Amino acid sequence: MKFNNFDKTQSYKKLKKLAGKYSKFSLAEKLDVVRVRGCSAPLAAGLTYNWAAKKAGDDLIVLLRELAVEQELLEKYKALAQGELMNTGEKRMVLHHLLRGQLGLPVAEKGRDLRKFYAGEMERVGAFAEAVHSGGIGGSGGKKFTTAVQIGIGGSDLGPRALSLALENWARTEGKQKMRAAFISNVDPDDASAVLASCNLDETLFILVSKSGTTQETLANETFVRNKLAQAGLKPEQHIIAVTSQTSPLAGNPQYLDSFYIDDYIGGRYSATSAVGGVILSLSFGADVFREVLEGAAETDKAALEGEIQNNAALLDALLGVWERNFLGYPVTAILPYSQALLRFPAHLQQLDMESNGKHVNRSGKRVNYPTGPVIFGEPGTNGQHSFYQLLHQGTDIIPLQFIGFKESQARDDVELEGSNSETKLKANLAAQITAFARGQKDSNSNKEFEGERPSSLIYGERLTPRALGALLAHFENKVMFQGFVWNLNSFDQEGVQLGKLLTRKALSGDSGDSALDEYCKLLGVKS
Amino acid sequence: MKFNNFDKTQSYKKLKKLAGKYSKFSLAEKLDVVRVRGCSAPLAAGLTYNWAAKKAGDDLIVLLRELAVEQELLEKYKALAQGELMNTGEKRMVLHHLLRGQLGLPVAEKGRDLRKFYAGEMERVGAFAEAVHSGGIGGSGGKKFTTAVQIGIGGSDLGPRALSLALENWARTEGKQKMRAAFISNVDPDDASAVLASCNLDETLFILVSKSGTTQETLANETFVRNKLAQAGLKPEQHIIAVTSQTSPLAGNPQYLDSFYIDDYIGGRYSATSAVGGVILSLSFGADVFREVLEGAAETDKAALEGEIQNNAALLDALLGVWERNFLGYPVTAILPYSQALLRFPAHLQQLDMESNGKHVNRSGKRVNYPTGPVIFGEPGTNGQHSFYQLLHQGTDIIPLQFIGFKESQARDDVELEGSNSETKLKANLAAQITAFARGQKDSNSNKEFEGERPSSLIYGERLTPRALGALLAHFENKVMFQGFVWNLNSFDQEGVQLGKLLTRKALSGDSGDSALDEYCKLLGVKS
Repeated sequence: MKFNNFDKTQSYKKLKKLAGKYSKFSLAEKLDVVRVRGCSAPLAAGLTYNWAAKKAGDDLIVLLRELAVEQELLEKYKALAQGELMNTGEKRMVLHHLLRGQLGLPVAEKGRDLRKFYAGEMERVGAFAEAVHSGGIGGSGGKKFTTAVQIGIGGSDLGPRALSLALENWARTEGKQKMRAAFISNVDPDDASAVLASCNLDETLFILVSKSGTTQETLANETFVRNKLAQAGLKPEQHIIAVTSQTSPLAGNPQYLDSFYIDDYIGGRYSATSAVGGVILSLSFGADVFREVLEGAAETDKAALEGEIQNNAALLDALLGVWERNFLGYPVTAILPYSQALLRFPAHLQQLDMESNGKHVNRSGKRVNYPTGPVIFGEPGTNGQHSFYQLLHQGTDIIPLQFIGFKESQARDDVELEGSNSETKLKANLAAQITAFARGQKDSNSNKEFEGERPSSLIYGERLTPRALGALLAHFENKVMFQGFVWNLNSFDQEGVQLGKLLTRKALSGDSGDSALDEYCKLLGVKS
Repeated sequence: MKFNNFDKTQSYKKLKKLAGKYSKFSLAEKLDVVRVRGCSAPLAAGLTYNWAAKKAGDDLIVLLRELAVEQELLEKYKALAQGELMNTGEKRMVLHHLLRGQLGLPVAEKGRDLRKFYAGEMERVGAFAEAVHSGGIGGSGGKKFTTAVQIGIGGSDLGPRALSLALENWARTEGKQKMRAAFISNVDPDDASAVLASCNLDETLFILVSKSGTTQETLANETFVRNKLAQAGLKPEQHIIAVTSQTSPLAGNPQYLDSFYIDDYIGGRYSATSAVGGVILSLSFGADVFREVLEGAAETDKAALEGEIQNNAALLDALLGVWERNFLGYPVTAILPYSQALLRFPAHLQQLDMESNGKHVNRSGKRVNYPTGPVIFGEPGTNGQHSFYQLLHQGTDIIPLQFIGFKESQARDDVELEGSNSETKLKANLAAQITAFARGQKDSNSNKEFEGERPSSLIYGERLTPRALGALLAHFENKVMFQGFVWNLNSFDQEGVQLGKLLTRKALSGDSGDSALDEYCKLLGVKS
C-alpha cells in the first residue's frame, strides 16, 4: 500500500480543476425526482444514504471513484480490519470493527484471538446484566439495582450517552426499559452532585470507565461517589464495576465488584460498541438490545467494503465531504437529525470527527498543506429551524448539511392536528428544508430572498431501532476513517490532549514557571 | 444617526491595513502577567471580561474605539432602548432591555408605558407562582402542582431551558427548588411522549409559549398534551397556562387557566427575561430568584453603555469578534463554559447569535459584501478537552474561543484527590487551556507540536448565581446587538424561517408542484 499526501495525488489535481467549473453547477436546476431517485445508496440495516442535494454530477463521481482507488481506501480499510498498525503515532492496531464482527482473517495478539476476546467480554457483560436484572447481584444494603450510572469522560461518555438517550423511548415502548441510566463526566463537582441528588444510592450501580485507569476527571468523580456511598452506610466496592484495560491499575482490583475489559486497540471515540457502551446499554435495556446495536454496526461495516462507490454510503459520504472541504472550501458541516432521541448524537460525532481528523500533520508526522477535518456541530430538527437555520439559509457562508430522518416515531404515540399527525409534520419539514436549502427562492425583496445552493445529504430509515442506531454509529466511524485515509492522517491518536494535561499539572503544582498561567490561576482562585 | 455598510467606513480600511501586520503578532510572546492584568474589563454582577489572549494590541484598540464611534454603536444602543424602530425589516421597536430596566426615558405605545407593562406582567407571574406554591392553584384532580412543563420551540425554549438547567444545582443547594421543570419542544412526537412519561399529570402544570399563538410545533404538542390530560380524567383548561401576545388567539382564551403577555417588541431569541423565561423560572425557583436574574441583566445593560471601550465588556467582545471574523478570517467561534450547569447555554447562544446576524443583506435590504455572523458552537469544559479540542489545538483552522469560568461551584459539594479538589482541577484545566492555546509548544516530533496563536477570551466570576446568569445572558445579547450595528444589519428579524414554512405547507398539502420535494416526501413516508 502507498501512503501519499492528498495534494500529491493525480486525483487532487483533477478535482481542483473540476472545482473551477462547479460554480456553474446549479442544485436548484438539477434537483428533480430523477436525481432524488438516482442519487441513492443503501447504507445497511434498512438505512439509505441519499446525496441528490449534493453538488455532485457524474463527472465528480468519476473522479471520486478514481480517488478511492488512488488512495487505496478499501485496501486500507481491509488492512486496518486485518490488524495492520494503522495507528502510526502510537504504533498500534485499530480494531473497533472486531468488536462487532470479523471482516477478514482472525486477528491475534500473543496467540490470543482478539475477536474471541471482545466477544467473550460481551458474553460476560450479558451474564452480569442478567444477574443484576434478576436481583442475583444487588446493592450492599440488600436492594435490587434499579439505576446504572456511568462515570467517564470523552469517548467513555459521549458515545454511550448518545446511544443511551437514543434508545430510551424505543425501550419504553417495547417494554425493554430495565434500569434507569445516568452519566457523570465533568470534573466540575456540580455534575456528580446533581446526578447523585437524583439517585437512591442503595439501588445504584456505578460503572467506572477509563481505559488507562488514570483519567483525572473520572478518578476525581469516583472518589466523590465512593465518599457518598460510604456516607450512606453502603459498601462502595459492591456498588462499582470497572471498564478498563487489563493492564490498568483498576483491573481485577478488589475495590470493584467486577471488571470488563477493552484494550489499546479500541480508541475512546471508537469504543461505543465495546464494553464502554455495552455495559450501560445492557444494564439499561438488556444484552439482547445491545447485541442488535452490534449487529447493525457489523452489517454497516460489511457494506462499507462495497467496491462500487455509488453503492457504498460510507465511501460516498466521506468523499463528498472531502470535495466540500478541500475543493468547494466549506470548513464546517452541520449534523441535523430529525429525531429528538438523537439529541446528543451530534456531540458524539463532534468528538469522533474532530478528534480523529483535526490534525495538520500526516500519519508519518509531516505537515500537510491542505485543510483536513472540518468543524462539526448540530441540533435536532425541527428545533434548529427556529434557531440557527437563519444563518444556514441566508448567512454569508455555505455550510453543508447532513440530515437524518425516520419514517416512524419510536414511541408510536401521536396526535392529529389540522389534518396531519406530528410525525408527518416532522418529515414534511425535513423534506421541505432539503428542498429549500437546495433551491432557494427569488424575491424582489432581498431580505426575503434565499440563494439556495446549500448542499445536503439525507440518511433515512424506517424507525430508530437498536439495529438502525448501530448502523448510524458505524457509518460515521467508517466515513471518518475513509476521510483520514484520503488526507493521509493517523485518525487514531490524539496528541492534542497532551499540552493541556501538562500545563494543568504545572498549574496545580503552584509553580508553573509561566507568569500568565499563574495569573489566570490567581484570577480563578486556583489554590495549589 | 448614520447607517453605513461596514466596508464603507474609514475604520474598515484602517483595520484591513492593520490586519496585514498582525501575522507578526505573537500571542506566545506577548502573553504575560502584565497583559493578563491589563486586558480586563468589568462586565457586571461580579463578572469580568479578560481579553489578554486575544490578538489585540493597543494599535487595534485605538481603531476599535474609532469604529465604535464611526458606527455610532452607543448612540444606536441608546436609540434602540429608547424605542426607535430598529427592527427595520418588520418596522418595530426592539425592547428586550425594557424587560429588566429602563435605560432612558419611558417608552410608550398608544399611551401605555411599556416598562410598566412588562414589569406588571412579571408581578402577575410572581403572584401566580406564589399561588401555585401555596397550593391555592392546583390540578383539577385536587393535587398540588409539583412539575412545570414548558411547551415551546426556538426562543420559547432554548433560553428558558438553558437558564433553568443553569440554576437547578444552585437552587437545590440554596433550598430554592420549588418545582421540577421540564421542556417539550420538537414536533417529533417522541419528545412530548418521553417528557410526559416522566410526569404525574395530575401534579403537572403546562406552560404553552407562543407569541403568535400559531407556532406549528407548539400547537401540535399542545394537542398531544390536552389529549393525555383528558385521557387521565383531568381538565386540560385547569392544567395549562399561556405565554403569548395580547393579540394572539390564545390571549384570554378560556382554554387556559391564565395568560401572561409579551408583545411584538420582544424577539423570541431575546425573550428569556420576559414571561417566556419568567414563568417557568418563577415556578421552579420562586419569583425572587427570577428577579435576581433580571437584576443581573439590568446591571449588564447599564454597563454596556460605558463610553470607554476598554471598560465596556460587551463592546470589546463584539468588536474583537468583528476583528476576528472580518480581518483575521475566522468563520467559527466556540463557546466553552467550564461549568456543567451551562450545558445548554451554547445552544441558546447559537440561536441568539446565528439567527440575529446570519444575514447577507443589511438593515435596508441591500446585499452586503463582507462576512457577517459566524457559526457558534460549544460544549462545557473539561469535557470538550476530551472531544473536539484536538482540532482546536492542532487542526488546520484557527477557531477563537470564548471561555467562561467560576471560582466556586454551585453545590459546594466537593472531594479532594491527590492534593486538590475537583473545583480546583476544573479551574486549573481552564487556565492551562487558555495558555496552551495561546502559546503552543514546540516539539521536534511534529505530531506533538502545538502552533499556539489560538485566541481566546475569558468571562469569569465568583459563582453561577441567578444574578451572574442574568448578566451572562444580557452580555451576549448586547454583544450580538453591537456586532449587528457594525455590520449594519437588522439583528431583530428572521426571514430565514419563512421558506421552510411555505414548503412544509406545500408538502403537507400533497400537491407541492416540486417533483423533488414530492419524492423526498415519498421516501420519508409523508402522508398527505
